[in-house]
Amino acid sequence: MNLLLLDQADFVAADRVLLRDRRLTHLQQVHRAEVGESLKVGLLGGDMGSGRLLRLDAGEAELQVSFDQPPPAKLPLTLLLALPRPKMLRRVLQTVATMGVPRLVLLNSYRVEKSFWQTPFLEPAAIHEQLILGLEQARDTVLPEVIIEKRFKPFVEDRLPQLTAGTLGLVGHPGDYPHCPRAVVEPVTLAIGPEGGWIPYEVEKLAAAGLQPVQLGERILRVETAVSALLARLF
Amino acid sequence: MNLLLLDQADFVAADRVLLRDRRLTHLQQVHRAEVGESLKVGLLGGDMGSGRLLRLDAGEAELQVSFDQPPPAKLPLTLLLALPRPKMLRRVLQTVATMGVPRLVLLNSYRVEKSFWQTPFLEPAAIHEQLILGLEQARDTVLPEVIIEKRFKPFVEDRLPQLTAGTLGLVGHPGDYPHCPRAVVEPVTLAIGPEGGWIPYEVEKLAAAGLQPVQLGERILRVETAVSALLARLF
Repeated sequence: MNLLLLDQADFVAADRVLLRDRRLTHLQQVHRAEVGESLKVGLLGGDMGSGRLLRLDAGEAELQVSFDQPPPAKLPLTLLLALPRPKMLRRVLQTVATMGVPRLVLLNSYRVEKSFWQTPFLEPAAIHEQLILGLEQARDTVLPEVIIEKRFKPFVEDRLPQLTAGTLGLVGHPGDYPHCPRAVVEPVTLAIGPEGGWIPYEVEKLAAAGLQPVQLGERILRVETAVSALLARLF
Repeated sequence: MNLLLLDQADFVAADRVLLRDRRLTHLQQVHRAEVGESLKVGLLGGDMGSGRLLRLDAGEAELQVSFDQPPPAKLPLTLLLALPRPKMLRRVLQTVATMGVPRLVLLNSYRVEKSFWQTPFLEPAAIHEQLILGLEQARDTVLPEVIIEKRFKPFVEDRLPQLTAGTLGLVGHPGDYPHCPRAVVEPVTLAIGPEGGWIPYEVEKLAAAGLQPVQLGERILRVETAVSALLARLF
């Protein structure tokens, strides 16, 4: 937790917050904060600044806070991911928030196991929790938008063309394709497939919606690794 | 498991292997392999090829194997990592093997908690296990070398200068430094710090050994994310 992320419910006055939840535990047990200390704080969806610890009891922490700095810029990116397996999903959500992806689409694919759609980690509160952890890691305050699309064809035919309009559209796929470009300046729409990859029909449909196949090299990466590697290469 | 990784002990004839361990379980439960099927195989430390499944019983799988293809090239890199916390260490070892790092140095740093050095995940068999998982993921057969350096100063003063000689030496560090370079062609020595970063003394010592500070942008990444992002940017 590199940023103490606050929301409106934490405020007891314009410049005072009270914390009683896992953030209090973190201050006590991991950060071992002391009264008088200054900590990095951020207002969820707003600016970042600093908080002076006024009081730290067993059950409560009180801070005086001020905000004077915008959060870091997001990447100019819409990321489409074939829904990963539940355990990977949680980490990917954190990674996506940490790296500054503003919009994530979790998409069905032929090779996504049906059971993955049943995971409680897809519930809004569970997604929110992982995104918050990712923002705290990166020092950012702005939640990514997460869109869930359980049907591949209607999404790719009807909604994807609008999302890709005016962007560089790319789909990661093994094979004799150009390498993923580096240091692009335009906005990007990037699709990353499931374990085992997209099937040819899906690559064709994504291409028809404006996403050109690019290869990622010989090595097969886990989804989380592929996300961070591709974003670091692109931007 | 994108590659069935074999070692000499698996062979019962020049072109036959018997599997009885977690690879058998994987074939049965995840891959749901069927007799006659052809699978990607690799010889640990050697070539890759294919294996035809001759027999699959409850307790044993027999394959006829042939090898005709070298493993993918490694990156021209020595990676120095401040020892991560145990849970992260396991994942980082996999990522390092998956991404093709040939040599990893796990190094002490002021901000590495002493207890991290006590973890059973640092035992050779535990390291080996995670590296194998990373190789199976990537489809590679060659284990990275892992060097453990519990004392920062003697390593950085006495041994690091030889490692960095003739390489581009870089140390990731937040601050007003040049951005990490992209698409380099020369060999690289890269050092990545602990959670909370290197202390100024350590950055000075690393610089004296030939590693120049580079920044990674505003966002603070977890070690595993930083590793994959930096390698994808560098190579």
